[in-house]
Amino acid sequence: MKINARDEKRLVMEILTKWGLNEDNAEIVADATVDADLKGFTSHGLGRFNQYIVGIEHNNINLHGEIEIETETDAVALINGNYTFGQISAYKAMKIAIEKAKKLGISAVGTHNSNHFGVTGFYADLAVKEGLIGIVLANTAPAIAPLGGKTPVLGTNPIAISIPSDNTFIATDMATSASARGKLLEAKRKGEKIPEGIALDGDGNPTTDPVEALKGSILPFGAHKGYALAFMIEILTGPLVGAGYGTGVQGTADPTVKSTKGDLFIAIDPEKFVGREVFKEKTDDFINELRTTTPNTIVPGDIESKNIENRTDKCLDIDPELYKILNSICEEVNINLDDYTC
Amino acid sequence: MKINARDEKRLVMEILTKWGLNEDNAEIVADATVDADLKGFTSHGLGRFNQYIVGIEHNNINLHGEIEIETETDAVALINGNYTFGQISAYKAMKIAIEKAKKLGISAVGTHNSNHFGVTGFYADLAVKEGLIGIVLANTAPAIAPLGGKTPVLGTNPIAISIPSDNTFIATDMATSASARGKLLEAKRKGEKIPEGIALDGDGNPTTDPVEALKGSILPFGAHKGYALAFMIEILTGPLVGAGYGTGVQGTADPTVKSTKGDLFIAIDPEKFVGREVFKEKTDDFINELRTTTPNTIVPGDIESKNIENRTDKCLDIDPELYKILNSICEEVNINLDDYTC
Repeated sequence: MKINARDEKRLVMEILTKWGLNEDNAEIVADATVDADLKGFTSHGLGRFNQYIVGIEHNNINLHGEIEIETETDAVALINGNYTFGQISAYKAMKIAIEKAKKLGISAVGTHNSNHFGVTGFYADLAVKEGLIGIVLANTAPAIAPLGGKTPVLGTNPIAISIPSDNTFIATDMATSASARGKLLEAKRKGEKIPEGIALDGDGNPTTDPVEALKGSILPFGAHKGYALAFMIEILTGPLVGAGYGTGVQGTADPTVKSTKGDLFIAIDPEKFVGREVFKEKTDDFINELRTTTPNTIVPGDIESKNIENRTDKCLDIDPELYKILNSICEEVNINLDDYTC
Repeated sequence: MKINARDEKRLVMEILTKWGLNEDNAEIVADATVDADLKGFTSHGLGRFNQYIVGIEHNNINLHGEIEIETETDAVALINGNYTFGQISAYKAMKIAIEKAKKLGISAVGTHNSNHFGVTGFYADLAVKEGLIGIVLANTAPAIAPLGGKTPVLGTNPIAISIPSDNTFIATDMATSASARGKLLEAKRKGEKIPEGIALDGDGNPTTDPVEALKGSILPFGAHKGYALAFMIEILTGPLVGAGYGTGVQGTADPTVKSTKGDLFIAIDPEKFVGREVFKEKTDDFINELRTTTPNTIVPGDIESKNIENRTDKCLDIDPELYKILNSICEEVNINLDDYTC
């Protein structure tokens, strides 16, 4: 089975509105889903719907919830996501951040009672679409042990930063762990080893066995420096925004339980510093220098933008397992899945 | 020769005021200098004065310059440092950021025409002293080559983050390169090898020879992820704040030339999110969990706070080379260095 991005968006919106989500909110979730699949993070796109439906059944994703601003100034806000789709609370939080930053130059909006929101970079990119810099941080279920330890306490805590440019998609979107948990699960399924320097077993010793690693912990990327970053993100998306932290973070992998993760959305408007046009001109000049000195280098964002370019307007494979799940989701709400496939 | 922190501050203030700096500004530079030496970053403390004096002689450090706010909103400011001591422009920029963040919850202040400011963390710590979170970014002279390249384009671009707590000094202050340039210089001087995975030679090949590494480039920490961070910091402290970027950054190592580096100071007030007391309580609870699950772990900031504890009120060694330099500086302005030593 194959599907293209346009039909994927139509399909997701159709499923979500049949589930009872209003059209505007359905479009937000659909756009975020397609973005993940186009960028190549398929586990965060359509591939996540089997979990979303469980979350809805358990009332851990609230189809009729609306976000609620708990505290607010002209530059910040703290939002109760009220367990809407994470995409909806994240989208609305970043939109609020963008409006505030346009007036004052910088803003930060935190969310708690939020849910899985797809790829972190999607929300940083929202700022770029309006000429601003976007920064998004989130915490996740414990995965990384404290330095020298064996008990996971820190999440894989992603950071995404996107930068406006006239010529280039400039963005980074990365976990602060050395590997995503999904890669460990994949290696286990395929009976493969994992690379060295990625994970520890349950006793805190290095392992290349994914089964042992899944009983243990994932290492931070870049040793103590990556550890310090994961640690700081935990604080900025936990204690600061009224969300869980440490082992108190219930992540989004188990949709039968309410998530306690938190997010922080920062927008910066270059207009209030050097001016948007000057900023883009200089940034593009900098990118140009990188590419001139090193013609084959990779600028952060190059891989995603190549994926988007290669995938847009093409029919993309959906694996048989996912097809089965989607088909059963569609049948329940009287959608003919084959109306949407290539 | 030995000196303690109290006398070091007196000495630095005496030298600086003799040079013509006013008392308030002299105290800022003195506090930053002592902070570097207490934390153990001695190359950024007293050890830097031989360069400062050259900078002053060449009019690249302006003793009578004052910072100038070029653009401003209630949440951001862009500052022309006018080549004052970097410590002065950085201190004043962070103080402005703190005042703005106290009103609105977040702020960002950028500086250009700035100079060497000692340790990055000193300015993040200023926010913590007033109950706020401090984040400081800076770019530096090119040191890191683009991924896959050999020509340095990115600086060692430090990031410092400090977090208020009732119990613990919580702070990270790190270069986004795998090593400081100073460590390469030290290995060269001692005729030692450098560790693997730190640097490339002039042809872009891995090397453990510091002489070859100094002709080549330093690697980012944590491979492509650390690279992406160094890259983003370059943009946030170059194009965004009207400073140099890429090979256009004239760093502070050569005080005979004007610096074109840039800095960004961000303050976040938890009071406008969950409240300062709740934030500190939860953060301390998180730290407690880290230490409970892993009794021997290192929380970011532990090493610096242990250094400060061990060094405060003690007489600390000053190496003979630095003593000679300080002595000659003192003689020129009729200070008896031995009045300040232990």
